[in-house]
Amino acid sequence: MTAKARPSLRHIVSINDLTNREIEIIFDVAQAYLDELPDPNLSYRIGRSTDIASKFILASLFYEPSTRTRLSFESAMLRLGGDIITSADPATSSAAKGESLADSVRVVSNYADVIVIRHPRDGAARLAAEYAAIPVINGGDGAHEHPTQTLCDLFTLKKKNKHLKNLKIAISGDLRGSRTIHSFVYALARFGAIIDPMAAPGMELPAHVHRRLKEEYRCELVSRTDESGAIDALYVTPDEPHQQSLFSGPEVDYGVIMRQKIDAVYVTRFQKERWADKNQEYPRIDAKFLKDSKYSHASVMHPLPRVGELDAAFDTDNRAMYFQQAAYGVPIRMALISLLLEIRKDRSLQKFEGGFDTPKLTLYEQPLATGIRCANKNCIVHEPMEAQYVRNKFQIVKNETNTDCRLRCFYCENDIDHFVVGSKKSQWFSDDPLTLLRPADQGVKDLVVFASAEDAAVAGYHPKHSTSSRSRASS
Amino acid sequence: MTAKARPSLRHIVSINDLTNREIEIIFDVAQAYLDELPDPNLSYRIGRSTDIASKFILASLFYEPSTRTRLSFESAMLRLGGDIITSADPATSSAAKGESLADSVRVVSNYADVIVIRHPRDGAARLAAEYAAIPVINGGDGAHEHPTQTLCDLFTLKKKNKHLKNLKIAISGDLRGSRTIHSFVYALARFGAIIDPMAAPGMELPAHVHRRLKEEYRCELVSRTDESGAIDALYVTPDEPHQQSLFSGPEVDYGVIMRQKIDAVYVTRFQKERWADKNQEYPRIDAKFLKDSKYSHASVMHPLPRVGELDAAFDTDNRAMYFQQAAYGVPIRMALISLLLEIRKDRSLQKFEGGFDTPKLTLYEQPLATGIRCANKNCIVHEPMEAQYVRNKFQIVKNETNTDCRLRCFYCENDIDHFVVGSKKSQWFSDDPLTLLRPADQGVKDLVVFASAEDAAVAGYHPKHSTSSRSRASS
Amino acid sequence: MTAKARPSLRHIVSINDLTNREIEIIFDVAQAYLDELPDPNLSYRIGRSTDIASKFILASLFYEPSTRTRLSFESAMLRLGGDIITSADPATSSAAKGESLADSVRVVSNYADVIVIRHPRDGAARLAAEYAAIPVINGGDGAHEHPTQTLCDLFTLKKKNKHLKNLKIAISGDLRGSRTIHSFVYALARFGAIIDPMAAPGMELPAHVHRRLKEEYRCELVSRTDESGAIDALYVTPDEPHQQSLFSGPEVDYGVIMRQKIDAVYVTRFQKERWADKNQEYPRIDAKFLKDSKYSHASVMHPLPRVGELDAAFDTDNRAMYFQQAAYGVPIRMALISLLLEIRKDRSLQKFEGGFDTPKLTLYEQPLATGIRCANKNCIVHEPMEAQYVRNKFQIVKNETNTDCRLRCFYCENDIDHFVVGSKKSQWFSDDPLTLLRPADQGVKDLVVFASAEDAAVAGYHPKHSTSSRSRASS
Repeated sequence: MTAKARPSLRHIVSINDLTNREIEIIFDVAQAYLDELPDPNLSYRIGRSTDIASKFILASLFYEPSTRTRLSFESAMLRLGGDIITSADPATSSAAKGESLADSVRVVSNYADVIVIRHPRDGAARLAAEYAAIPVINGGDGAHEHPTQTLCDLFTLKKKNKHLKNLKIAISGDLRGSRTIHSFVYALARFGAIIDPMAAPGMELPAHVHRRLKEEYRCELVSRTDESGAIDALYVTPDEPHQQSLFSGPEVDYGVIMRQKIDAVYVTRFQKERWADKNQEYPRIDAKFLKDSKYSHASVMHPLPRVGELDAAFDTDNRAMYFQQAAYGVPIRMALISLLLEIRKDRSLQKFEGGFDTPKLTLYEQPLATGIRCANKNCIVHEPMEAQYVRNKFQIVKNETNTDCRLRCFYCENDIDHFVVGSKKSQWFSDDPLTLLRPADQGVKDLVVFASAEDAAVAGYHPKHSTSSRSRASS
Repeated sequence: MTAKARPSLRHIVSINDLTNREIEIIFDVAQAYLDELPDPNLSYRIGRSTDIASKFILASLFYEPSTRTRLSFESAMLRLGGDIITSADPATSSAAKGESLADSVRVVSNYADVIVIRHPRDGAARLAAEYAAIPVINGGDGAHEHPTQTLCDLFTLKKKNKHLKNLKIAISGDLRGSRTIHSFVYALARFGAIIDPMAAPGMELPAHVHRRLKEEYRCELVSRTDESGAIDALYVTPDEPHQQSLFSGPEVDYGVIMRQKIDAVYVTRFQKERWADKNQEYPRIDAKFLKDSKYSHASVMHPLPRVGELDAAFDTDNRAMYFQQAAYGVPIRMALISLLLEIRKDRSLQKFEGGFDTPKLTLYEQPLATGIRCANKNCIVHEPMEAQYVRNKFQIVKNETNTDCRLRCFYCENDIDHFVVGSKKSQWFSDDPLTLLRPADQGVKDLVVFASAEDAAVAGYHPKHSTSSRSRASS
Repeated sequence: MTAKARPSLRHIVSINDLTNREIEIIFDVAQAYLDELPDPNLSYRIGRSTDIASKFILASLFYEPSTRTRLSFESAMLRLGGDIITSADPATSSAAKGESLADSVRVVSNYADVIVIRHPRDGAARLAAEYAAIPVINGGDGAHEHPTQTLCDLFTLKKKNKHLKNLKIAISGDLRGSRTIHSFVYALARFGAIIDPMAAPGMELPAHVHRRLKEEYRCELVSRTDESGAIDALYVTPDEPHQQSLFSGPEVDYGVIMRQKIDAVYVTRFQKERWADKNQEYPRIDAKFLKDSKYSHASVMHPLPRVGELDAAFDTDNRAMYFQQAAYGVPIRMALISLLLEIRKDRSLQKFEGGFDTPKLTLYEQPLATGIRCANKNCIVHEPMEAQYVRNKFQIVKNETNTDCRLRCFYCENDIDHFVVGSKKSQWFSDDPLTLLRPADQGVKDLVVFASAEDAAVAGYHPKHSTSSRSRASS
């Protein structure tokens, strides 16, 4: 009776594992739980009339500190009538003895019905999902993603604005290290938002996130000089980008955008644990900053915890929505758990497929010892304990014009742009990345990707024609 | 649906948050749970016939080690049919990322229905109660108080002696660092006990506790020389001091007191974590010590854990009551939780107001940057993470003759005797503490208290007449 | 209402606390839980139709890291409808304040109905059982035993082989430090297995385990030289040794044994935490090793976690049974808990006594300060925090021919062979160990055992005749 995956098994590792339609279904179910409350302004005994998760168990596997995410997931499961088992501290778990995550989730698949995982490594949740026989929910993996936080954020925005279309959202702080931001901007782009990035110096969105916004969600990065001469830039996204894969961008009316009020300012903490320089300059949001008339109706949001970047004196302002965001954690997670466990008779994630679909990308896969490895040193593939369990796995992503392609790490989703491609059969290699695209799907199996011509040569491969950039032009 | 406080919201931060009558009600409910047991000597499946806390959640927020308090609260909640969520280790909670307690309890107010908190800082539980939207129970805050331990202690005494009036109780060990002792002596005084303090050298009751016993509970500190010439001192309290605010002390019959047997010896652990010198001389209670005929019927009590100060060889003596005390933790906490959650239809803390009432004291309050700060360095107001959330708050306590007053920290309840008082409007200051008492309530808002004339001068205030002590005499 | 032990109180500290018949009963009950599953290959919602542990509480007291054991016990309790309270980290429990285990389990006996304990010290679980008023289950104590892992292991073997008789089992790795191995080999011997020890260099079975296999379970250690000239050794056990205390060994047919296929290879982790040299040579089991035809039908087992000694590439081989072992943790522990709590109306551990019975051995007992102490430095008796709670306790074990005897520590079960025996009454001592056997049971109380003649002399005892070895020969 080793846990065997159910046919309909779903994992929520990235916000992009959910379509827009599915996100709306989750919100409907969350709202249904809220509607049961005697006082809609009071979470007091939410779920008192339901017991649908009875005899189901949620396992919290937390390899990094958490209060909000873990306790709200556990509260949600209990409110549904279910039970919880918790490993909150890697120092007291078998990880302290050197156990791999892959082994741990396979074992825990026999003890529980759904796993929530938090881990310091980017991509750890995807690895867990590869090995688990029960649904895995990503409770935050390194600087990668935090999709359930984004569900709370979007729900907060929807409740406030009645809809999620064409909102104008400013995001402030550590846009690079904040996994919350990464899930959030993908979702915003998918719902057609205008995103105003206000990064701390050196903490801009990571290159791969930026590029994905542009290429997959068709965001246009619009620069402008404001009255004071400062240069500003906005991501402007079309409506429903996911339904318009050939969409070439609307005629952006800058004047309209300039006059729009900001719907929300989303503030994030300086993720000290992910940066070497802990004394970095960092923007502080307070009543003075928010006095600008463009923020007059802005929801002020924060995933929390905060450590000074958002003034506590602002808490009594009725634009402050961050405790509301945290409060929605329970109904949102109740909804997500019930849908993943398929215990709501009336609603299911399986029945509605519309909306955003992750593009089907060809997968390149090799044993860990072979060829190129993810360049992100914090990616789970670099964790020594997982060396026996991960492979070099990349999705092959082409650009819009089919003139170039890059590799996206299957786990952490960071990009690799420069590489050479070898053929096992013929033992040649080429620096033309499009080599990866030309063969049929099964053809990928013949190919080995190396980080450089030197690496390919060391492995005994020979250059096809030349290693100059001419080969790319000629393809 | 951010958690909004219910109108009848109560917190148990100090034993003085409960009246004597309310304590008796808690005991009645606890006894009712005990009466359900098939064998009154067996805790086996206490609560098997009740499910009244079903779908309620207790959150344990423990920032300091605990076994007894946390597990007995959790057991109590489960025995009532409720559920629990637990943060047992600050290193794995968002506190590790620098989150304030104030933010944490506001967030957790949305995930649970009642919070039990333990914290190394004095006064932390009061801060938590200020921000929580659900009942906060103090599970021990620094060297301040531990009121639910006192409820177990009093219940043990009541079960043994049938009543709580006029008991003679010896308290031994670290009377200064033990929060348990502080809650206990307040309660003993309020029930009219004679308290025999047997402090380890240098570990006497803190000055503010001593003074409170004398001034608020009308304890008379009676010194006497025993046959061997040693000087002894006892706190002798009148019956029901809370009902007799003008009570001036009975004619104490020393002879009677001398002849009384000790009803209980309460032993406490050396609170190593709160003292610099870890190798301090410390009294050890054992069978030999307890051979004295005055202890022949004494209950020997200890809040546990013990670390050598109470001989394990004494465990089989039928005066040993410490495991009994620990055992009562479950029914007592079941009672307290049911009453705070208002889920017992038959009993409520709200309906009975008689007994001890905390005196209504005027509150002095300023932003943290302004004026005098609590002198207790372990007070929660000195915790950097809370700097945005605490204020300088003091209750103004006058002496019996209305000739002097002092400041009591709203959080840790330590006293400040020496200060000067300034007026914002007129920019003068005076070293007459009674200045604080003279204005009407709203008048306090005009006043700023400084630790010294120097501080006041630095802040730009000028002495009223002179800074000599004459001003006090002339008032 | 201090917790009072029920008359039928049972603890599971060693696999030898259960008879063979009782083990079979546990398996029957575990199978009954499995039979309820809609899909026997799926643990999904095991126990959905039962609620028999409702309002019972399991306390996890873990003083050492664990994922599998703790979470599977907790899952089992929840699947039965019960509740859990957890102390997963000694750093956040009262142990951090210096509380003894003896005090902790007495206290927790009032908060729960059954305790699972894990501890780094050998014999800690026996100490806990001495003081607890509720059943204690050993979840692993130092290098001593891990009986519930053995139940999972045996159940896995039984499900695969339909029976447990005469199996041939290879055990690989750290046979010395692995508590799992110790419980396992006792059980194998009791069910008549042939054990093929494949120890890492210097990690052979401890001497006391080896001797116990030989003397108590009548295992014959058979050496042989294989074709390649290498020396091999096997433990060959008779059928049902426990029923044949006078059994002198069958005529072992080496030819038959040589031709037998291995039924299972049991791999164990290098218990780094129990060894000084962390870089020790260690056998690695992989597909290549298992290619040998004698392993062609062998189950490959591992208690997990693994850290490299068992190749992850082997996971897809259908001989790999280790995740199956882990999966059986839930039904096995559900069965054990239900039987210990006596909540299965149909089955009970109390009603079936047949099978293995621990031999009744005379107990020698003295205060900790008196005479010989356990020689195993990791034994719980050497834990300073327990100094007030443990005694020098040894079982007196004679050899088969009644010509010698040794002391077995009551807690960790390590042996002491060399000692001298003194008589309190006459103040003599003798180096003849049989002195311990000669007196009637009450006579043991007069005797004091010392580690050496020097120690006896220091204590004021005088040699009886001489301290030479002649005295033993003359007895």
